Amino acid sequence: MRIPKHIGIIPDGNRRWAVENGLEKKDGYDRGLNPGLELYKLCKEMGVKEISYYGFTVDNTKRPTEQRLSFTNACVDAVKLLSGEDAELLVLGNADSKMFPEELLPYTKRRTFGKGGMKLNFLVNYSWEWDTGFAKNNLMGPLQSQEVSRVDLVIRWGGRKRLSGFLPLQSVYSDFYFIDDFWPDFKKEHLEEAIGWYSKQEISLGG
Amino acid sequence: MRIPKHIGIIPDGNRRWAVENGLEKKDGYDRGLNPGLELYKLCKEMGVKEISYYGFTVDNTKRPTEQRLSFTNACVDAVKLLSGEDAELLVLGNADSKMFPEELLPYTKRRTFGKGGMKLNFLVNYSWEWDTGFAKNNLMGPLQSQEVSRVDLVIRWGGRKRLSGFLPLQSVYSDFYFIDDFWPDFKKEHLEEAIGWYSKQEISLGG
Repeated sequence: MRIPKHIGIIPDGNRRWAVENGLEKKDGYDRGLNPGLELYKLCKEMGVKEISYYGFTVDNTKRPTEQRLSFTNACVDAVKLLSGEDAELLVLGNADSKMFPEELLPYTKRRTFGKGGMKLNFLVNYSWEWDTGFAKNNLMGPLQSQEVSRVDLVIRWGGRKRLSGFLPLQSVYSDFYFIDDFWPDFKKEHLEEAIGWYSKQEISLGG
Repeated sequence: MRIPKHIGIIPDGNRRWAVENGLEKKDGYDRGLNPGLELYKLCKEMGVKEISYYGFTVDNTKRPTEQRLSFTNACVDAVKLLSGEDAELLVLGNADSKMFPEELLPYTKRRTFGKGGMKLNFLVNYSWEWDTGFAKNNLMGPLQSQEVSRVDLVIRWGGRKRLSGFLPLQSVYSDFYFIDDFWPDFKKEHLEEAIGWYSKQEISLGG
């Protein structure tokens, strides 16, 4: 089976999951932690070399404060959780903003935990404009995400079929796999089906 | 019904259509002309304001010469065909290369035909690297495609689920709709289903 080297994860649907389960919207994010850890472990077993995980964006921070605090805490907890595994962690996003959690500043350069071996990129207070220096149709300077390689497969949970600003230049040739279930309802079959589908796609890179 | 202002069209599957119909690969491109005209007319009726049509890319020009000549001719013919309609035509791509057809040089600045009214962008000898000035993880200067607005809906024929370098910065928030049929088998129901689906999607632009 052809295994993607680099998978992008868009873990959408936390708030809708919370509402469907009689909780407040803000209480959905916490339920995304275990899925994230399980996904990491499954990918490691399969031989995936890199995962980019869409934490939150600059746009997301305009949501009500209690939601913002909740998804920010979930990202901090996720990074702490994964730093207990074998991983090379990088947190990528606009760290000059006060929306960027201080606890994650030490991770803005890639750090190796345990035996390393898998690159894990967490997008935190990320925006594609920040990444590309995009302003008024001008682009400027080095890509902020230059440390992140081309993404082979993007998997999005939560039923929407869009990238929502996720790593636009790394995703130019990615295959997209969309899952209707909400991210907190992650199960290993989702990943297996996504990889099974990916392995049957023809790679052309435009050629 | 919520109609997308700007639709991106990835008309894939011409070669596979040709092979399935007992023709040579190069003979598939010609069969994409009528679908393109029909799609334009349907979009105009629906009130779509702008269409971006993926003609061919710099990568595509590495294919065998007879295929290259065939898709290049099909693009020239498509632009000529559409210049007989009410449209504001722009051909966008690397015109400094000899792979760019001379006949299309007059269209590299937007020109109005008939009563104008709908913007039609044709990507011809386009590449996302050329568009963004991307080299070695650096980006430089104005976007070559700055004349092209944000894309609301990308429709791709031919079964693949990827952007293949199509306008990466205009597509950051686009909804994606994928159709298994090959482009030469275009029928109006494809477009109607795509727009029907789009009109039910929630717009969030990351908020």
